[in-house]
Amino acid sequence: MTGESVVNIHTIAIAGGTGKEGKGLAYRWAKAGYRVIIGSRQLEKAMSAANDLNQILPDEVRVEGMVNQDAAREADVVVLTVPFSAHIPTLEGLKGELREKILVDVTVPLVPPKVTKVQMPPAGSAALEAKQVLGEDARIVSAFQNISYEHLLNDEAITCDVLVTGTDKEARSIVLKLTKDAGMTGWDAGPIENSVVLEGMTSILIGINKQFGSHDAGIQITGVPRD
Amino acid sequence: MTGESVVNIHTIAIAGGTGKEGKGLAYRWAKAGYRVIIGSRQLEKAMSAANDLNQILPDEVRVEGMVNQDAAREADVVVLTVPFSAHIPTLEGLKGELREKILVDVTVPLVPPKVTKVQMPPAGSAALEAKQVLGEDARIVSAFQNISYEHLLNDEAITCDVLVTGTDKEARSIVLKLTKDAGMTGWDAGPIENSVVLEGMTSILIGINKQFGSHDAGIQITGVPRD
Repeated sequence: MTGESVVNIHTIAIAGGTGKEGKGLAYRWAKAGYRVIIGSRQLEKAMSAANDLNQILPDEVRVEGMVNQDAAREADVVVLTVPFSAHIPTLEGLKGELREKILVDVTVPLVPPKVTKVQMPPAGSAALEAKQVLGEDARIVSAFQNISYEHLLNDEAITCDVLVTGTDKEARSIVLKLTKDAGMTGWDAGPIENSVVLEGMTSILIGINKQFGSHDAGIQITGVPRD
Repeated sequence: MTGESVVNIHTIAIAGGTGKEGKGLAYRWAKAGYRVIIGSRQLEKAMSAANDLNQILPDEVRVEGMVNQDAAREADVVVLTVPFSAHIPTLEGLKGELREKILVDVTVPLVPPKVTKVQMPPAGSAALEAKQVLGEDARIVSAFQNISYEHLLNDEAITCDVLVTGTDKEARSIVLKLTKDAGMTGWDAGPIENSVVLEGMTSILIGINKQFGSHDAGIQITGVPRD
């Protein structure tokens, strides 16, 4: 909720965007006026997911489907929504396209079957693993791990806040703007090392959902002014 | 908010309890009817802190002051509220008294000057470091890291929830009961490995407080029924 982006973001690619997380975010950003490209390893899957979204989007709003590399090449910001098992291979495939661009890593390092237990990779978190793959100069933001994605597609209000960590303040500001444009409340949660909290919170929320038979457990920041 | 303790807790020791965290928790639990002992390395400091609290507690409620080891020996539950620099030495001094008892570790591994950056010890978190010191069979709960302690002493409502992780479900249930008795809303946040999220969240909340010039940033769980 602090800071305004000074950089103009026009095109967002969602690599590995054929799942519910990627489609939910694509839907919100397309409606907010961004050009959105769904990426996948297979072009047909990307186009099929784009087609699904275009059926529910207003007529004047279209999303596109491309293979991940092409989607990333077209974009100002690349959002990564893949299962943890595909995290490193997808990043290695995108490395050449990500120079000078902001990567938003939504990956949660869940290790089945104990998905309610925080189990970080040796790098410390998925986002820090991305930094290892992409190099010290990479601009990486970690965000959106705790959202119930069904609500995004249903135009429902999101009661879960978005904590945004990242390698630099400008990158965090840009993603805070994207968060707001997607209809959510975001907070600057500091350096990329703090991503372990966001990723690990997902395991805690899955555990709370199991206890209550729900799908919607989230978090909100209290004690400071909301928008 | 789930689970009811089956174990009767009578006496709570707060080791390193002369700071604001320890005094705040001691105040709430004393008012709730528990016998509470403030512990310190120095008897005079413990008695002075107990005296401070007794001035603001109702006449019929008294807390006691003892050296840490004596306080722990008397207690059913030992709560540890020390600066991170004193974490390992204090645990080593208490190890003999903690067998068969539940340790509630409130320690946050803040590393000045970058206290807004999550920096965990090699064990993975302060609570996991406690497990290394106390051994595999130790019963350890990690909780209360995100509370603004001034509110505890002022009888104000606490808008920050308490996430409770721990080595076993019964220990978590006992601490959830203590949380409720202190006037706060607690949630079973799973195994002790999840303590990294609770401890790391403190750095994120300190960062948000700095952005807004506040002292009260906290978190609440959303999307599931509250009490």
